[in-house]
Amino acid sequence: MTDLFLWILEILGTVAFAISGAMVGVEKKMDLFGVAILGMVTATGGGAIRDLLLDVTPPAVFRNPVYALTAIGVSLLVFLPVVRRAFLQHTRAYELTLRVIDAVGLSVFTVVGVQTAFTVYPDANLFFASFIGALTAVGGGILRDVLAGTMPYVFVKHFYACAALIGAIACALLWPLGSIPAMLTGMALTILLRLLAAHFHWNLPQAK
Amino acid sequence: MTDLFLWILEILGTVAFAISGAMVGVEKKMDLFGVAILGMVTATGGGAIRDLLLDVTPPAVFRNPVYALTAIGVSLLVFLPVVRRAFLQHTRAYELTLRVIDAVGLSVFTVVGVQTAFTVYPDANLFFASFIGALTAVGGGILRDVLAGTMPYVFVKHFYACAALIGAIACALLWPLGSIPAMLTGMALTILLRLLAAHFHWNLPQAK
Amino acid sequence: MTDLFLWILEILGTVAFAISGAMVGVEKKMDLFGVAILGMVTATGGGAIRDLLLDVTPPAVFRNPVYALTAIGVSLLVFLPVVRRAFLQHTRAYELTLRVIDAVGLSVFTVVGVQTAFTVYPDANLFFASFIGALTAVGGGILRDVLAGTMPYVFVKHFYACAALIGAIACALLWPLGSIPAMLTGMALTILLRLLAAHFHWNLPQAK
Repeated sequence: MTDLFLWILEILGTVAFAISGAMVGVEKKMDLFGVAILGMVTATGGGAIRDLLLDVTPPAVFRNPVYALTAIGVSLLVFLPVVRRAFLQHTRAYELTLRVIDAVGLSVFTVVGVQTAFTVYPDANLFFASFIGALTAVGGGILRDVLAGTMPYVFVKHFYACAALIGAIACALLWPLGSIPAMLTGMALTILLRLLAAHFHWNLPQAK
Repeated sequence: MTDLFLWILEILGTVAFAISGAMVGVEKKMDLFGVAILGMVTATGGGAIRDLLLDVTPPAVFRNPVYALTAIGVSLLVFLPVVRRAFLQHTRAYELTLRVIDAVGLSVFTVVGVQTAFTVYPDANLFFASFIGALTAVGGGILRDVLAGTMPYVFVKHFYACAALIGAIACALLWPLGSIPAMLTGMALTILLRLLAAHFHWNLPQAK
Repeated sequence: MTDLFLWILEILGTVAFAISGAMVGVEKKMDLFGVAILGMVTATGGGAIRDLLLDVTPPAVFRNPVYALTAIGVSLLVFLPVVRRAFLQHTRAYELTLRVIDAVGLSVFTVVGVQTAFTVYPDANLFFASFIGALTAVGGGILRDVLAGTMPYVFVKHFYACAALIGAIACALLWPLGSIPAMLTGMALTILLRLLAAHFHWNLPQAK
């Protein structure tokens, strides 16, 4: 039951992340192959980095291809001009929906990252578990930006990565009380912070 | 016998990939060290990424340094202006030769990638084995472009990566019939598609 | 005793590398989070790449968070305009000090890399051990530059990476005579070459 719930949220997050990757590919005038790969990397890259660092083999992205194939399918849809035009006619509703499912994706990738860290290393320290959680959530976006030749978005603007990091720390701190309350709290906190940050345009101080 | 044949093709591919990496380093006005490392990374980076993802340790590039040292030697030659001038006097013959050995390299790296995936994980699914095959072939070029600060070539133009991917899928599909026919078919398909694509300027549709 | 000595030098190197990463983040107008992460990645990224390639799990950066936390703390200080202003008033003394501790950091990361290679693979060949040593030392800087969207510094200018590579080769060659003399020689050579190169503006030939 919990697993099915998590799985649905992961698929939602995969869809949202693939859209963000494919859109960057379209902006950069990549070809069909580039757009599909950039969508896939954005959606599954964070988990792949996590599995490399935790020595989980083979990485989940290969063990169960449903996430990668979903991301590729979504990216191919985004590649079609007719699909992008349809979105443009409902920009506001589309952006709100995408923001919410992106927040859900960010939160579920974060807590699944923490869960994987504690599964492989039950004694993982707080820095370890929460860093892996946040990296699972934002690693795909960092890969996307590096491959697209731009500075990673998470280093420059908004509160995005901090929402994942704070959710990961909460989840890791609460882990001894049980994985389900820890993951639910971490997810709720990440979603809340990410949506508040987007709504109120929270930004971290920038270097001058 | 098959091993010797594969080894010769791998060395040929190493030479072609090292030339492509070193040429990018020269264009970007890197120093001797940068050119040598970029040539080496282009030639051996795809295999290193493959070995990291498959948890093959130590990665082949370190276990047997002949590939890396060949790539470094070739790159140092490319660094010499006198060598580059000699090529410029026979541009057409040189480009044709390089294109053919690059195609051979692409194809052999692809099927060796599939072979390594099935050696480590005999039950690897089709997505897993063929993605690892294609990544072995194009991963070095992606690293080259990221390190040189340009958008990866394979995402933008030509049919290059698709030739590797289609060869990898054919090789993985035929694997149960025997590794030698599977690898020969995968190689032939990759070489054919890559040369046809170059000759007829095949391009995938690009986002607009 | 030796371990304590090494540890102090590693912390010094962590501080110097974190400053260099955080300064790049400040130049690129990253936010607080970006500056902290770029400092941390610069200081700990080389070791993380080394541990991935050697299959050391979990990577040292997670097993013992003191290095990462030191780097984050230093980066947050660099983020403060008041701290950067204080440095600007003593530019010359500050640059000399930073150059010396950066050289110490480069040298200690190099020989610890060689040591880790031989600990995990006692039969590692010379190429393997010395490449891992040099990559431990310069890998963090390469990650810093890729994440900041610039061409890696070590590929373009100065003798920096060569100092680490020559120190690593010396350390690996002397390893059979005992780890302590090998590491001391490798460190001394790296420090000497790096400082001489900076003082006399040594550059490798650049492609034209």
